[in-house]
Amino acid sequence: MGEPSSTPGGRPDFHAVHRELLERAVAAVRERAYFSAYPESPSPRVYGETAAAEGKAAFERLLGGPFPLDQPGERGRVATERSPYGIELGVSYPRADPDALIAAATAALPGWRDAGPDTRAGIAVEILRRINARSFELAHAVQHTTGQSFVMAFQAGGPHAQDRGLEAAAYAYEAQTRYAASVRWEKPQRKGEPLVMEKSFTPVPRGVALVIGCTTFPTWNAYPAIFADLVTGNPVIVKPHPGAVLPLALTVSIAREVLAEAGMDPNAVLLAAEEHGERLAAELALRPEVRVVDFTGSTEFGDWLERSAVQAFVSTEKSGVNTVVVDSTDDYRGLLGNLAFSLALYSGQMCTTPQNIYVPREGVATDDGRRGPGEFAADLAAALDRLLADPAKAAGTLGALANQGVVDRLDGAAALGKVVLASRALAHPEFPDAVVRTPTVVALDADASEVYGREHFGPISFVITTDDTAHALRLLRETVAERGALTASVYSTDPEVLAAARSAALDAGVNLSENLTGPVFVNQSAAFSDYHGSGANPAATAALTDPGFVAGRFTFVQVRRHA
Amino acid sequence: MGEPSSTPGGRPDFHAVHRELLERAVAAVRERAYFSAYPESPSPRVYGETAAAEGKAAFERLLGGPFPLDQPGERGRVATERSPYGIELGVSYPRADPDALIAAATAALPGWRDAGPDTRAGIAVEILRRINARSFELAHAVQHTTGQSFVMAFQAGGPHAQDRGLEAAAYAYEAQTRYAASVRWEKPQRKGEPLVMEKSFTPVPRGVALVIGCTTFPTWNAYPAIFADLVTGNPVIVKPHPGAVLPLALTVSIAREVLAEAGMDPNAVLLAAEEHGERLAAELALRPEVRVVDFTGSTEFGDWLERSAVQAFVSTEKSGVNTVVVDSTDDYRGLLGNLAFSLALYSGQMCTTPQNIYVPREGVATDDGRRGPGEFAADLAAALDRLLADPAKAAGTLGALANQGVVDRLDGAAALGKVVLASRALAHPEFPDAVVRTPTVVALDADASEVYGREHFGPISFVITTDDTAHALRLLRETVAERGALTASVYSTDPEVLAAARSAALDAGVNLSENLTGPVFVNQSAAFSDYHGSGANPAATAALTDPGFVAGRFTFVQVRRHA
Repeated sequence: MGEPSSTPGGRPDFHAVHRELLERAVAAVRERAYFSAYPESPSPRVYGETAAAEGKAAFERLLGGPFPLDQPGERGRVATERSPYGIELGVSYPRADPDALIAAATAALPGWRDAGPDTRAGIAVEILRRINARSFELAHAVQHTTGQSFVMAFQAGGPHAQDRGLEAAAYAYEAQTRYAASVRWEKPQRKGEPLVMEKSFTPVPRGVALVIGCTTFPTWNAYPAIFADLVTGNPVIVKPHPGAVLPLALTVSIAREVLAEAGMDPNAVLLAAEEHGERLAAELALRPEVRVVDFTGSTEFGDWLERSAVQAFVSTEKSGVNTVVVDSTDDYRGLLGNLAFSLALYSGQMCTTPQNIYVPREGVATDDGRRGPGEFAADLAAALDRLLADPAKAAGTLGALANQGVVDRLDGAAALGKVVLASRALAHPEFPDAVVRTPTVVALDADASEVYGREHFGPISFVITTDDTAHALRLLRETVAERGALTASVYSTDPEVLAAARSAALDAGVNLSENLTGPVFVNQSAAFSDYHGSGANPAATAALTDPGFVAGRFTFVQVRRHA
Repeated sequence: MGEPSSTPGGRPDFHAVHRELLERAVAAVRERAYFSAYPESPSPRVYGETAAAEGKAAFERLLGGPFPLDQPGERGRVATERSPYGIELGVSYPRADPDALIAAATAALPGWRDAGPDTRAGIAVEILRRINARSFELAHAVQHTTGQSFVMAFQAGGPHAQDRGLEAAAYAYEAQTRYAASVRWEKPQRKGEPLVMEKSFTPVPRGVALVIGCTTFPTWNAYPAIFADLVTGNPVIVKPHPGAVLPLALTVSIAREVLAEAGMDPNAVLLAAEEHGERLAAELALRPEVRVVDFTGSTEFGDWLERSAVQAFVSTEKSGVNTVVVDSTDDYRGLLGNLAFSLALYSGQMCTTPQNIYVPREGVATDDGRRGPGEFAADLAAALDRLLADPAKAAGTLGALANQGVVDRLDGAAALGKVVLASRALAHPEFPDAVVRTPTVVALDADASEVYGREHFGPISFVITTDDTAHALRLLRETVAERGALTASVYSTDPEVLAAARSAALDAGVNLSENLTGPVFVNQSAAFSDYHGSGANPAATAALTDPGFVAGRFTFVQVRRHA
């Protein structure tokens, strides 16, 4: 990047530093081709020979002590996290005083608004740059709060989340700067000189923003909202899930550091840590000053927010019932391998993991012959067994179960139908106390919709026998319309079935993957190209990221006068 | 436009016909310079020698009979309008069966969605072209439902509304087409060939849209929503105010005609007429199929919609308290003339008409000497008297009072404070039964906030004595933050006061006009350049038109497969 740029006041000019990347990101969201700003490989060749060790050491220095965060409104400390890998965390955070946080965010608003979109976007990208530089430290924080494996925590919690943050920043930046900031308006008159007005248009934020984090993807799911809010001028209160505070505490701390360096009020970003069960999110979400709310989590609380926080622009990502329609394939082995990995990855604890796998009663036509529902379920179970045969490698795919709720759900799954594959406990090669479990597969008939018609979050999937593929597509339409879904997937060699599946996906408003048999998985979405969610079914109110995700966060205020 | 274009199926290709205008409109919203697609002058040189007479005759043919509209769900007829000019209207409309309308709109959705943004935008612009060609007929319809004078009804109800419709269509079109509709995504791999996926992205509408019209600007306030909905793929149910049905019935009828010609289901646009007091809007707004609601009208109902129609993307424009801060001027006569016209235009029945005029106790420094609050109020009263001295010309400015509610409010205004200018009844030169009244001006002290702190819709304004201009700006901040405003205006020769006013306008989230002394009035906004409302204060949830007004009406659904 050459010499660091600075403003006339001697402050670093992060917009000048990052202008090129920002423009590239704006182009990328329009083109939707492959683009990534932050390398996903934790290789020493990319991040440097010492990065891994330094990141680990930095993480370990944080354990067992107060997290350093100098912000207003501390009323005691909270230490609410436990590692799914069984290590002691013991990091304490300032317990938030909601009044003090709202007062501080409100006071930060005018200055942050007046900084304008260029300055705000530059600062946002600088925050991302520093977050990226600390990806190893963040990876450990994500691993030990979510239960993700280290590599997944590095990728999904690090560079992939950073890319999503940059993507949202790019949308927010473009939405504000696409329109002329000022204009000389000349209206011709029938007689004489034209009418001439000078006009200026200032993007103004809605107000204080609240981002409510989740326990499984604390950074990935929060970064789009945090960076969309920041770039549109809304000071952000980040309310992490009590089980996954550290990744967002690091994020807030980095953001506050950059804001201060840039001469801005660091209270444009604040952390709102709480005890388990304190219901701070609900309290903050109803405050009249809070005009933007983003939430990832349960349908129950998401629906409540949509109904209750009517003073705010509310975006939610809730639960859903992700569906796979299996009709036919010319790569049965590829299908099984791909699907098995999708079910196993992070023990099915992704909002995008398939749950309902529809197989026609007549069986699936494959390059290995026709496979009936029972055979298909057995083949899928075998593929999972193969995938998870080596315990050390299996732990790298499965990670650990995030919390006791998932364990209980998995234990109860055997009662839901005919168990085709039972869950097994695995020993973790590095962390003896980690709770590692293989996925279960349960066979159901299509009339058991009271079972498969709702989400069973965790490593639980159903192979469901349908009359035929048309029946499966009908069920897809119905369950997605009623319960929502973040992903849908179809396997077919028949162009007419694929066309019918596309039509069902459009009607249900769910993103569709077709015939995934290689190294792309239905539960993964690529920033700048794939939409995560659609906003067109009950699982989410907007996609990460689409125009609707950013446009409601700001408006323009205009001033005009005669020239 | 040369030869009419047509599609391979023999249907007219309205996108090809209107592509150039559409692209010009998309550029205009970005540039925000002067642009208009539909001439505002009712001159025969523009609209043709016979247009005025033909439009009048067409209007008169509609009177006293059933409005021709062939749509589903008729359960009897309703005739609910009365002309503020006292002529008999007697037009009857199909009384809507909400179930039938929702069923018809729902059935129209997939075809309208699948038509895609190009086709939809082409059809929208063709609808606007035909509406424009019938501007005289529509002007009579607007005049005799709203009470606007004929010229104002022609301009605001015709070309200005059409420009706003085109502006919204342009936003909606660009928001969908700015991003690649399909892409070949190639992700480099560390070893071997890149991962290659083919992806396509389809904009999908939220669902059925409901547009709830108002009684004073039935077309101008509804067109942005109608055309934003149509272009984003949402079938629209247009629910006119029972007092102003005809302008929207004509609009719906034209839209259905164009849809049918284009081979589309005409039920993508439906009229929902009702009896007074039937509360059809409330019933439709809560239906789960209705996913977009636009409303112009009372704060009470708008707030109810925002709280209650939580399944929908709701945009409202409600009441507000528009403010003028008078500090100083070097063109006192221009100030008085401009302000008097703003108060008199359509008898103050514009959501943008100023109500609260703050004058410092020490007086206003002018090129005519310092004028205390009492002198200023008297000077303003005299300017209104001058403006309205000629009864025939006055009627052209004032129009007629829209309904008895406005008459009652005006009659009660004398009790609100010290009457500086009393309202007078005027005879209309053409319509003897028209209710024409001049505005009243009432003087208040700043402590009477219980009076001026709420909207008094109609020709009622207050000259309010403040301690000083800083006090006035404080009151502006407070009343706008609490009650909302669509416009604010300041007069000052002092750059510091102007800067303070801009700062107050940003904080309050209201559009500001500075030192208007010529032929631009605070209550007028120009499509493609001025925002109408801001969405940043309680008077409205979005501006006409900004990105937030359109982006919530659709999302993208994606399909991907290996290449």
